[in-house]
Amino acid sequence: MSKHPNTTSGTREALDAVHNSMLEGLSQLFAYFGFGKVMGQLYGVLLMSPTPLSLDELMERLDISKASVSMNMKTLEHMGMVRQVWVRGGGGRRKYYEAETDFLQIVSNILSSREMRDVDRAISVMRENTDILKGAMPAMSEDERDIAEVYIERMAQMQTLFRFAQLLISSILARVSDLDLDDISHIDIG
Amino acid sequence: MSKHPNTTSGTREALDAVHNSMLEGLSQLFAYFGFGKVMGQLYGVLLMSPTPLSLDELMERLDISKASVSMNMKTLEHMGMVRQVWVRGGGGRRKYYEAETDFLQIVSNILSSREMRDVDRAISVMRENTDILKGAMPAMSEDERDIAEVYIERMAQMQTLFRFAQLLISSILARVSDLDLDDISHIDIG
Repeated sequence: MSKHPNTTSGTREALDAVHNSMLEGLSQLFAYFGFGKVMGQLYGVLLMSPTPLSLDELMERLDISKASVSMNMKTLEHMGMVRQVWVRGGGGRRKYYEAETDFLQIVSNILSSREMRDVDRAISVMRENTDILKGAMPAMSEDERDIAEVYIERMAQMQTLFRFAQLLISSILARVSDLDLDDISHIDIG
Repeated sequence: MSKHPNTTSGTREALDAVHNSMLEGLSQLFAYFGFGKVMGQLYGVLLMSPTPLSLDELMERLDISKASVSMNMKTLEHMGMVRQVWVRGGGGRRKYYEAETDFLQIVSNILSSREMRDVDRAISVMRENTDILKGAMPAMSEDERDIAEVYIERMAQMQTLFRFAQLLISSILARVSDLDLDDISHIDIG
């Protein structure tokens, strides 16, 4: 590319290189958080597209099956990462998709729907487990009681970590509605 | 288990149930962050063990190959999640492992070694991509320039999100040394 900085093919290459770099990065990011590469690619193609795209267009661009496109787009829509737009043309309205670009809103959707629920559940499982052990302790042998005490201590330590995660998530969620990511200059943990 | 709250077998069942519940939860948590279930199980067994364990004991308890135990334990050690302890016995010293239970330290190790590096790299890739496009824009056709402008805008938006992640990670890292997780009562984002 650097060999042809002033030719049309060079500029096309620059655009393609950046496009592919973003798609690759987003599919890694998605895979990293357990969402699957296809989802990252679909979101990436929409994010980098100047116009909304139809399911057929997404299928062609990424060379993946209609079933896979359709399933992954449903999940992306459910997560608030893409949305439907209707475009007139060819004698009727056709369904297109565009990417949500309010990233703080996306992070907030994911945190509130998935992470917060997982953290809440982990804490309540550990709380129940602790109650079970405390209830069973009077009937335990001395050896068993020693083990129970280790378990209870470990779960208490881990609950502290999860409560920190809860606090972090709810602090982010609390600021989503009234804050612009660009304006955030400090995070004070105390 | 609830049917035998006062028998020895009931108490043993209670201990096993809590042990398995924690192992299951930790292996999910590890898998969730892309570390693999075996690593979560190994850490879980050590975390819930009242005494340090050898590689052979870990192998037996989890019924996994020596090669897999050895490889995953190396990664856990590198991440600061487990550490070696030497125990005298049988005419010599044997190598055992115990779990790190300072979770804030563990989070800090992971954030500083992995997440921070990934975030830094993503930001620098987007910065380079933006420079490439800006350099190529004078030679572009009008259509190409429109696309380049969309790409530059999207990368700028995404860099804002990644800078927020950077700020969040460095805020957590900055407090690790002087803060107890138990003492954290608020997180102020502003």
